[in-house]
Formats: sequence, C-alpha cells, structure tokens
Amino acid sequence: MRLNAFDMATPGHIQQGLWTHPRDRSADYARLEHWVGLARLLERGLFDGLFLADVLGIYDVFGQSPDAALRHAVQVPLLDPLMLVSAMAAVTTDLGFGVTCNLAFEPPYLFARRMSTLDHLTNGRLGWNIVTGYLDSAARALGYAGQMRHDDRYDFADEFLEIVYALWEGSWADGAVMADAAQAVFTDPGKVRRIEHNGKQFRISATHLCAPSPQRSPVLYQAGASERGRAFAARHAECVFVNGTTPSAVAALVADLRARAAPRPLLVFVGATVVVGRTEREARALLADYAAHASAEGVLAHASASLGVDLAGYGMDEPVAAGPGNAIRSNMASMAQIAGPAWTKRKLLDHAVLGSRHMPIIGDPAQVADALQAWMEEADVDGFNLSRTVMPECLESFIDLVIPVLQARGVFKTAYAPGTYREKLFGQGALLAAGHPAARHRRW
Amino acid sequence: MRLNAFDMATPGHIQQGLWTHPRDRSADYARLEHWVGLARLLERGLFDGLFLADVLGIYDVFGQSPDAALRHAVQVPLLDPLMLVSAMAAVTTDLGFGVTCNLAFEPPYLFARRMSTLDHLTNGRLGWNIVTGYLDSAARALGYAGQMRHDDRYDFADEFLEIVYALWEGSWADGAVMADAAQAVFTDPGKVRRIEHNGKQFRISATHLCAPSPQRSPVLYQAGASERGRAFAARHAECVFVNGTTPSAVAALVADLRARAAPRPLLVFVGATVVVGRTEREARALLADYAAHASAEGVLAHASASLGVDLAGYGMDEPVAAGPGNAIRSNMASMAQIAGPAWTKRKLLDHAVLGSRHMPIIGDPAQVADALQAWMEEADVDGFNLSRTVMPECLESFIDLVIPVLQARGVFKTAYAPGTYREKLFGQGALLAAGHPAARHRRW
Repeated sequence: MRLNAFDMATPGHIQQGLWTHPRDRSADYARLEHWVGLARLLERGLFDGLFLADVLGIYDVFGQSPDAALRHAVQVPLLDPLMLVSAMAAVTTDLGFGVTCNLAFEPPYLFARRMSTLDHLTNGRLGWNIVTGYLDSAARALGYAGQMRHDDRYDFADEFLEIVYALWEGSWADGAVMADAAQAVFTDPGKVRRIEHNGKQFRISATHLCAPSPQRSPVLYQAGASERGRAFAARHAECVFVNGTTPSAVAALVADLRARAAPRPLLVFVGATVVVGRTEREARALLADYAAHASAEGVLAHASASLGVDLAGYGMDEPVAAGPGNAIRSNMASMAQIAGPAWTKRKLLDHAVLGSRHMPIIGDPAQVADALQAWMEEADVDGFNLSRTVMPECLESFIDLVIPVLQARGVFKTAYAPGTYREKLFGQGALLAAGHPAARHRRW
Repeated sequence: MRLNAFDMATPGHIQQGLWTHPRDRSADYARLEHWVGLARLLERGLFDGLFLADVLGIYDVFGQSPDAALRHAVQVPLLDPLMLVSAMAAVTTDLGFGVTCNLAFEPPYLFARRMSTLDHLTNGRLGWNIVTGYLDSAARALGYAGQMRHDDRYDFADEFLEIVYALWEGSWADGAVMADAAQAVFTDPGKVRRIEHNGKQFRISATHLCAPSPQRSPVLYQAGASERGRAFAARHAECVFVNGTTPSAVAALVADLRARAAPRPLLVFVGATVVVGRTEREARALLADYAAHASAEGVLAHASASLGVDLAGYGMDEPVAAGPGNAIRSNMASMAQIAGPAWTKRKLLDHAVLGSRHMPIIGDPAQVADALQAWMEEADVDGFNLSRTVMPECLESFIDLVIPVLQARGVFKTAYAPGTYREKLFGQGALLAAGHPAARHRRW
C-alpha cells in the first residue's frame, strides 16, 4: 500500500472550515516550521510522499464573487508549493514530494530548470502532478481573455511535455559532467547539445541549464478523468490520482487507465479521508467534533468552481443543472455517482460530511485498515492520497494507530526502499522507463 | 559597513577555474548541504545577506560556441536560485537573501506569488535583484527570435514592476486576514480587491493569491549602470550593486545614482574580491595558489559574452573593438577604466588575476579592513558584495580574521538588528518607503 499525504499551502484545502477547529494548525501554512514539521512527521510514518495540490486563480463562481472563498479560506490565500520543497528536503532523506504545477502559463525552459533544480536538491525525490488548470480567473490573471478549451489544453500540454522531456532527457548525455579538476574539464562539451523544437505553440532553441539530475524527469503524476485526460495520462503518467465515492466506480476508471497505459505500469492513488480513533466510538466522536467546524458556504464555494455552476442561485432542494463552464469533469462524475444526475445542494452538503465529496473512512485502527484494504482490492488501486482534516493530528493519529496495523498485516513497508522517488515507487531504475515517450529524447 | 556574500548556484561564478582548487567545494553546488552550510556560516559572520546571481542562457559568444563555457563551468550548469531559499531560511533567522531574477520571461502573476511565498517563508528576509537579461541565447531558449533592445527591456520592466507592485501592495489591505475562528472568517472579503492593469505589454485582471507577506514587496536591488539603467535604479531600487576597478570611477557612478534617487536613500554595494591571510605574506601565497587554478579560457568565454565580442578571433596583443552586441554596459566601462579604449586580451587576462575584472584586495586582516574602509570613503559606498574565490574557505577566513577587526573598529555590527531584511538594512519600517512608486498602490 502506497500512502501520500494530500495537502496544500493554504488554510482550507478539501475539508472546508476545519481551520476553525481549536487544535487545527492549518493557519500556520505560511510558516516554514509548519512544513518542516510536517515533512519530519511523514517520514517518521514512512509515507511515500507529500502530494501538494495547487490552483491558479480564485474561486469566484459562487455568487459570481470570490467573497465566500476568501471568507472561508477556500484555497486562498495560497502559496507556491514549489518554494516549500527544499526546506522539507533538508530535514528528510526518503520522503517524496509530488508537487502540482499548472504548465499552461509556464515558459518551458524556465520550468524545466526549476524542476531539475529541485530534483538535484532533493537527491531525486521530486514528482510533478501535471495539470492544465480550469479557472477562467487564472487565465485573466495571466493576461488572457479566457482559457483554452478543455481538449486544447491537453494538446498544449503534450507539446509542452515534449519540450521539457527533451531538455531533461536529451540535452545532457550521461557522463557529460566530468568535474575533472586535474584536466580542468567540468563538462565535456561533446556530450551537451542544444534542443531544437519547432511545434505548433513553441519554437525553441535551448541548451538545458542543468546537468542531469538523479531522475532527470520528475516522477509524473496526473489526475484527469475525462476522455482526453485519460488518453493524456496513459501516454505520460507514471502515477495517477483518482477520486470517486464508490470502489466500483473507481474500479472502472482504473481498469480503463491501466488498459490504456499497458504495457507501462501505473500506480494509482485514490483520494481518501480517514478519521481514526482508538475505538470506533472515539472515531465517531472525533468525526462529530470535526464536522461541527465544517463550513457549508465554503463547500458550496469550492463546489461551484469545480463543478462549473453557481450554486448560490439554487434552493436547497432544487435540482442542479450541470454547468456549461469549466468543471473538473471527474467532479461532475463524482456528483452523479453520489446523487444521480438530478442532485441538489442539500444532497451535496449531506455527502460533504467534512466538506469533501468523498465519504470519510471512520473507525478504529483495524476498521480503517480493513476499509483501505477493501478499497485496494475492489477498486484495484495501489494506495491513497490522504486528505487532511485537523492538522497535524489527523496524520499523527494515522501514523500512530493505523500504520502499525498495516505493517503487522504485511501490507505496508517497515522501512524505505533505497534510491530515488521513482526507484522507491517502482523498484526499478531512477529514470523514466524505456517505453515512456520521454525516453526517445535520449539520443546521445 | 554592509556585507553580502556574492554567489551563484554553479561551479564557476566570477573567478573562473577555481573549482579545480583542491580545497574548493563549488562542485557541490547541487547539494542542499552545501547551501545550508553556507547560510549557517554567513549568519555566524553576521553577513547582511547572501546575494545570489543568476543568468538565463549560455555563454556562446566566445568562438561562437558554448564549448569553453561548458568545459570551464562558466555559469553552467546552473540551478534556479529561488529554489535554494527555503532550505537556507529554515536554518537561519536573520540572514537576508537577495536573489537575482530576470523578469523578462516571467508571468507577473506567478512571479508575484513566488516572491510573496518566499517573503512569508523567510519571515520577511527576501530581496530581489531585478534584471532583464542580456543574452540572445536566453531569448531563443524562451521561444523568441532575439531579445528586446536594451532600453525597451527597461520599459518592459517598468510595466512589469507596476503589476507586481499592485499585487504585492494593493490587492490585500492591512488587516484583510482575520483568521478569526470564532466568527469563522479567515479573510475579510471587503479588504481584498482585484487588480486591473491595462498597459502596453500586459492586460491583467487578478487578485493576488497571497496574503500580505512581512515586507509585501521584497527588498529591491538593481545593478544597471547604463543611462537607462540608472534612471530605472533611481526609480525602483533600494539597494544598488555596482562594479568598478577604481574608487574614483565608482564614486562618480554612486554620486549620480544618489542624486537621481534623492530624496530616497540608496544603499550601494560594490563588488569586491578579498584574499586575506594572517600575514600579508600568507595572503600573497594564497593568492598565488589560487591564481594557479584560474582559467584563462574561462575568463575569455565569460568576458566575450558580457562584453559582447568574440575574443576567440583576436590575437593576444590585438586591440579589441567594442562589440555591437549585447554587452553589459558597466562591463564595457570597466574595461575602458582598466585598459583604455584599445585594450587587448593580454591586458584583460593580466587584470583578471583570479578571473574577475576587479582587482582583489589582498593582505592581512588590518590591511583588508583598511582597503575596505578606504573604498567606502572614496567611492561613497555602503558595503560590499564579496565574490567567492575558494569556497568556503574564503568566507571562513574573512569571518574569522577580518570581521573581528571591522567590529573592533566600530564599522561592522556585533549583532543583527531586529526585524525584516528591509528593517535591518534601513532601520525603518518593514515596507517600501512612502515615497517609493510602489507605495501608491496602497489605496485601501
């Protein structure tokens, strides 16, 4: 079983309102000590990685205003997650960092250097969750009238990836760096070449600024569930992050993704929220305590943006029409799974026990372990992205109570494997597999 | 006296070839421990800041090829300096970080968030050395046929700065963040506004993603010495980094900059290279030892790019014609100061004792202190950006030998002042002064 903590550099990530809980420390999101402590905690728990979400733009669909998002800290204020990595890497040796970066507005030459830098500094522990964005407010903030259409964004991403693959995999050959003081040769110029890219969006002539980092390309995550998103994931992703409310619905998505990617293996992580107590009774009391701090308006502000429909205009029991807007399609699918096509605000809020759209797993350590194992079996997933509830106690209790049970059952590791993030996850080499499209740029 | 260490995330910064010295650790530039150790060392020495250089593109003017730059590690390979900051901030409490970032290819909305993030994480210890680039190879790597003309780059920068000032200073009012758990209000929406910018280069509608950081705008450094660069510095910079070989030449530049910026005060740092020993004899022996590892070809590769002329085509004693290319104009002026308008490669190499174009300050601790104090008096500068030679021993010896002399003479502090980087440097508030153009965006 693979485990990532799923977090975001903001007071309100998925479970809206919980920053108001007296024991919650999410409001410390801008303090370095908060992140350094989190990294140490996760490494103590042998977590595979910290998966950091990100979003550009602000949630201004609900009531056609950002007010609710601001008031309830729904992913705003929000820091740049890449800036957190080196501090967390400095206090850990094995924890991976899967960072969400929207490529739609990044110059590939600069982005490639940023990622190579972090792969060097982390000693090969960097992952990238590839996203293309979905908020019009982001496009306007970047200087565009609106964003590209859904499928066009993926075409753009395909080209962007070709460029960064070429820089990461193709610009510097193995052995280019000699660092030979006696001969006074740092880099063998014969092993470095300029990348020439002439594509639809970009025309670039560039030598990568960085020597090869331990993994060259970071571990590639992707989370799209639309038809085009699945095709993209099948081509590029090594790890996929899926969401869904029932194992059977997720199983269908996972089977499709695995079939599309074959023979390349995929590691699939499903989003989960766990509330664990020493007893089931304690867990249920904890859930009630947490739920009392959830924010309904925060949930609606978040859902309005991610479903592409202004929920402010609907009565509690009025069926909600699917928006024509820029929904995350997997979220639409989730809602349909939960409540059928004619869902209402009340149904959404009833299901959003802690403000999220997946049901929390609640119970004593054995019950939680049972539920996680059942998910793995029924949905054929490899592990979980664990959403935070009250931080950091939700992770502390998971590590202290659930991890030992999983270890005793032989389903979770008792020590980190050696090597880079990719080696730890796949048990093979540090580089992208030979069958990956990036690998053909290794033409030295 | 203000002191910054002047460094770059690359094996060869200014003193080309010294990475081959047996005691030099510059080749560890991609290891986090290297930077964490440097930050701790500088804070032990009460340095005001670490000033990190950066450049986009590769030095391919010499011989019309990047080969010499690669071979001698002349600012390549090169990491993204911003990625180093949080790790260094986590092990220090007072050291400032002045980071060079080229704005020419950065989306302002994303760049503003990156800097705000680091100003938060460092607790207000971030500075930004504003540059606009000068290498055609960078423009091509970013997808352009060539770069903008020299003065146009500054016009572009003026507009870019207006946008990031508006985001940093104007989007979130003081007191916007309430973090009031009892009232369940994180941010008061009435105190956050969207920035609307309609300019020549950008048309942007954006709410800044970050709450106000301790300094809002980072401490602003600038280093341009051309006519347009000086006007830009006078408008925007709080700190200026100048270079020159003689105090009198620097004095004229400094007087001009101070007059232009008045009544705003400027802190002026001049580049310096120090080789100190317990005795003058020891210092001279050290210099000879270091100089034996300098790389003439590295110097020429660096100079060709920064002077805008391919020195490979010249004989050692052939007068070098000023290039029509993209020289850093202050470097051209330096060469003219050193050697007159009809300088030669031999003269350049003779003056580049350790591969740089300013003369090193060599001597015992008292002699070095004398020389630094003389520079401050004669050139009217406030302090120094100390170039590295053999790392980290050049800084260790400076801290162990020179700092105590400066302290005993009462010209260098014995403890850090409290507060942010800006408060430490200027002894006033954490924010840009009311007279700075950024301040007029505070229209809450």
